[in-house]
Amino acid sequence: MIKEGDFIFLYGGKKAQFLIKYTKERPYFECHLGKVDFPPEFDFGDVVYTNLNKPLYVLRPSTSDLVFRVKRLTTIMYPKDMGYVALNLGIKSGDRVVEVGSGSGAMTIVLASIVGDSGMVYSFERREEFLKNAMRNVKNAGLEKRVKFFLRDVEKDGFGVDDVDAIVVDVPEPWTVVGHVKRSLKGGAPVFFLSPNIEQVQKTYDALKEHGFVRMKTVEILEREIKVREGKTRPMERMISHTGYLTFAYKVNVEKGDLEHVRL
Amino acid sequence: MIKEGDFIFLYGGKKAQFLIKYTKERPYFECHLGKVDFPPEFDFGDVVYTNLNKPLYVLRPSTSDLVFRVKRLTTIMYPKDMGYVALNLGIKSGDRVVEVGSGSGAMTIVLASIVGDSGMVYSFERREEFLKNAMRNVKNAGLEKRVKFFLRDVEKDGFGVDDVDAIVVDVPEPWTVVGHVKRSLKGGAPVFFLSPNIEQVQKTYDALKEHGFVRMKTVEILEREIKVREGKTRPMERMISHTGYLTFAYKVNVEKGDLEHVRL
Amino acid sequence: MIKEGDFIFLYGGKKAQFLIKYTKERPYFECHLGKVDFPPEFDFGDVVYTNLNKPLYVLRPSTSDLVFRVKRLTTIMYPKDMGYVALNLGIKSGDRVVEVGSGSGAMTIVLASIVGDSGMVYSFERREEFLKNAMRNVKNAGLEKRVKFFLRDVEKDGFGVDDVDAIVVDVPEPWTVVGHVKRSLKGGAPVFFLSPNIEQVQKTYDALKEHGFVRMKTVEILEREIKVREGKTRPMERMISHTGYLTFAYKVNVEKGDLEHVRL
Amino acid sequence: MIKEGDFIFLYGGKKAQFLIKYTKERPYFECHLGKVDFPPEFDFGDVVYTNLNKPLYVLRPSTSDLVFRVKRLTTIMYPKDMGYVALNLGIKSGDRVVEVGSGSGAMTIVLASIVGDSGMVYSFERREEFLKNAMRNVKNAGLEKRVKFFLRDVEKDGFGVDDVDAIVVDVPEPWTVVGHVKRSLKGGAPVFFLSPNIEQVQKTYDALKEHGFVRMKTVEILEREIKVREGKTRPMERMISHTGYLTFAYKVNVEKGDLEHVRL
Repeated sequence: MIKEGDFIFLYGGKKAQFLIKYTKERPYFECHLGKVDFPPEFDFGDVVYTNLNKPLYVLRPSTSDLVFRVKRLTTIMYPKDMGYVALNLGIKSGDRVVEVGSGSGAMTIVLASIVGDSGMVYSFERREEFLKNAMRNVKNAGLEKRVKFFLRDVEKDGFGVDDVDAIVVDVPEPWTVVGHVKRSLKGGAPVFFLSPNIEQVQKTYDALKEHGFVRMKTVEILEREIKVREGKTRPMERMISHTGYLTFAYKVNVEKGDLEHVRL
Repeated sequence: MIKEGDFIFLYGGKKAQFLIKYTKERPYFECHLGKVDFPPEFDFGDVVYTNLNKPLYVLRPSTSDLVFRVKRLTTIMYPKDMGYVALNLGIKSGDRVVEVGSGSGAMTIVLASIVGDSGMVYSFERREEFLKNAMRNVKNAGLEKRVKFFLRDVEKDGFGVDDVDAIVVDVPEPWTVVGHVKRSLKGGAPVFFLSPNIEQVQKTYDALKEHGFVRMKTVEILEREIKVREGKTRPMERMISHTGYLTFAYKVNVEKGDLEHVRL
Repeated sequence: MIKEGDFIFLYGGKKAQFLIKYTKERPYFECHLGKVDFPPEFDFGDVVYTNLNKPLYVLRPSTSDLVFRVKRLTTIMYPKDMGYVALNLGIKSGDRVVEVGSGSGAMTIVLASIVGDSGMVYSFERREEFLKNAMRNVKNAGLEKRVKFFLRDVEKDGFGVDDVDAIVVDVPEPWTVVGHVKRSLKGGAPVFFLSPNIEQVQKTYDALKEHGFVRMKTVEILEREIKVREGKTRPMERMISHTGYLTFAYKVNVEKGDLEHVRL
Repeated sequence: MIKEGDFIFLYGGKKAQFLIKYTKERPYFECHLGKVDFPPEFDFGDVVYTNLNKPLYVLRPSTSDLVFRVKRLTTIMYPKDMGYVALNLGIKSGDRVVEVGSGSGAMTIVLASIVGDSGMVYSFERREEFLKNAMRNVKNAGLEKRVKFFLRDVEKDGFGVDDVDAIVVDVPEPWTVVGHVKRSLKGGAPVFFLSPNIEQVQKTYDALKEHGFVRMKTVEILEREIKVREGKTRPMERMISHTGYLTFAYKVNVEKGDLEHVRL
């Protein structure tokens, strides 16, 4: 049975997709398909009907759905990128992860949902308005116990956390925090940078080389949707072409001088 | 300190990347860069030198690394696809997940590493040779307690597991198992299909419609690597263009007849 | 100097791009940047100013510009596809080319501009309204002497032209005209099909095999624009993901039965 | 009938594709499918058989085929790029075109085949070995009357040709020739640059802005091949991911100072 505070994904066709939080105080929903009063007992997989007799399916939201529909004050990382990042960083249950740039808390939610109750996400943001919104979004997702938020300019003050398993950086000038990243990461552990522009990637590489990081890799992830209709199967006509460059690197316990003879 | 049985990712440049399992019985490693004898105490982030004086960096392997380097008897799902799938299915700590087609156990490892000790993966395979290899790979990754393997032709016999949170299907004729998928899924929960060919997707849609699934979506994920070198930054000249179509759908508690008026 | 009837491409920035035809009767132009009265003598490369003192550059239009801005009653082939098609068909000065489906005359203009005065394009269309619009667009481009238009249902009546160098097919049911295509093509010469949907491609292959065509090839062409700005260089955020599948095949003087042992 | 000096494209399946020039002196062909002796009279569209009884189809080569199979001493532009470039530059019968960097003569052949007998291509190359090879390839294609080759370092000496309709630049440091490009182009006419690396594009933009060029545009063209087989239709597993960035710009009769208020 659906309980107080459960997230529900209501689906009434391609153009009627809604993520809501169910509360007994507000046991109804309205959209262009009409109003639906939720029955006293209903469950995932049920169909409910609006007053205009339109069906809405009661689906379980995926992590993608939860993060894609946070309240946004910033651009957020896309699900296509977030899944790739989590897997490449090897985030797992119990990990301690630093996030630089909480943004709207979308990636925070993904990280918190993977590290579980035995892990911890340390999330840093320097703009108070964004931090508050991210905190609200994470709380809304029921994950607030797994995240410690900090209002801080990390370029100046660093993270104050050591031996973390992975670091996620999503700020406009990522090269300014590479020194702090090195200090806080476990040996041999990975850091990730999201950068919309190629010049940001180039400057980040310079900083990474200076601090002796290795195994740098930069990729773009493209998602192309396919319309599958009888006799009319084809890729969608338009797609998101670019969200950002995804850069990964690994910390080693040496400075650049020692590395000259390795192709990094 | 690195302990018996730890996985180590040795990195000596783009063309010298190795995943090994450290054991005290075999405390050395050999490759085209020479032989290295591991010191009695060493740690992630250290650099070790071969007898040819070539450095190798001791890095932590990511989940991508672990799955990409399983012993393969079948083609495996690519990391670019697996991260997307895990996020879209909303796999999380504690989930019970069915996998149809263990293959080489690569996706099994990803699923097991996310569901954690409180979750369970039920993995079905009908070819004994593949099942044994998958079991070995999962055990090798230290995840065998989180996976129950079955040698079974699921088309005939179904899964025998109910109320699961998500199902992953990677078999050549996925449409033959859609009825079993419906029976075993929780209401409102998602199923995923990997299909190299478009005809497989089309037939799967037909079966999904017949069984009243909704919110079907099919995508391709493309990964494009960028070479970042001073004055020579550009995408790599070649890329993997296609691995498979990724199809998602959600179970609802109705048959097709009831759905005619929804655009699925 | 710019003369009566010349096409001019006026450029006032990314959001102010206009293709016009200059006439002495209407020696002015208006847009959101203001009104400009053309001086009695002006030339390509000049800058003219609107009454709001905004500059507009007087550029030469490319073939892309001419075809992209025809009056459209149908979707048109995109420049990214048309250049590829012309080169792959090997269209050259003096060629005689059949076009099935005049559409809005966009591809007609490209073909006519390449075959020159010594060549000829035979363009077939069965909807009178479209034919008239295509004729107007071709005339407008000054290419009417190089094109013979036919209002005809080619499926029933064929082309009535023989020994042509290449055929371009852009109709919803291309497989219905493959027999006529074979009759009209020179031996060893190519035919091209534009198909938005994969099922159209599949049916066309069936028809091509039945008629003994060889060297079939199907591609998609993707165009990705790069924003180049100081410190902000990156791909555009959105792109056209799919216009159509481009299929090529070559006529040989045999029927299918004779070909069984060649992988086509 | 096939005549002395005709190019023939022999097709015996995906892995047996050959471009040859027919001469009476050498009226046979050999490959892994066996040897074929051409009959005294044969024509395009015919099938010939090797001594191993394998069929080869006698097809007409497209411009793509001709340029793709020139003798190469350099990397050549790909057909997917060349068609786009020709259309975007608006190359047409009668045009006078400058090419900077003859390379292996591949693009020279495309340009010469479009400008026809009434046009002219001026092709500049500074490495003698490359120039000689390009000349041989162009002569081989029977287009030598439409091309004037120059062994020249254009950065120092310029082109010595004025009022040309379009310029194609394919050299490693394109920004060094932008001043000469401006001098030789007609007003309002376009120039094209091929650059593998993004830094080359960035430097070229700087030079273009300094010389008052407008309407800059940079794209990548991706070609993705689709395998169409009954029940096994899908994109090819691998593709060329990057050949180069294609940059276009237009000359206007002003210097940069005058343009500050236009977004170029």
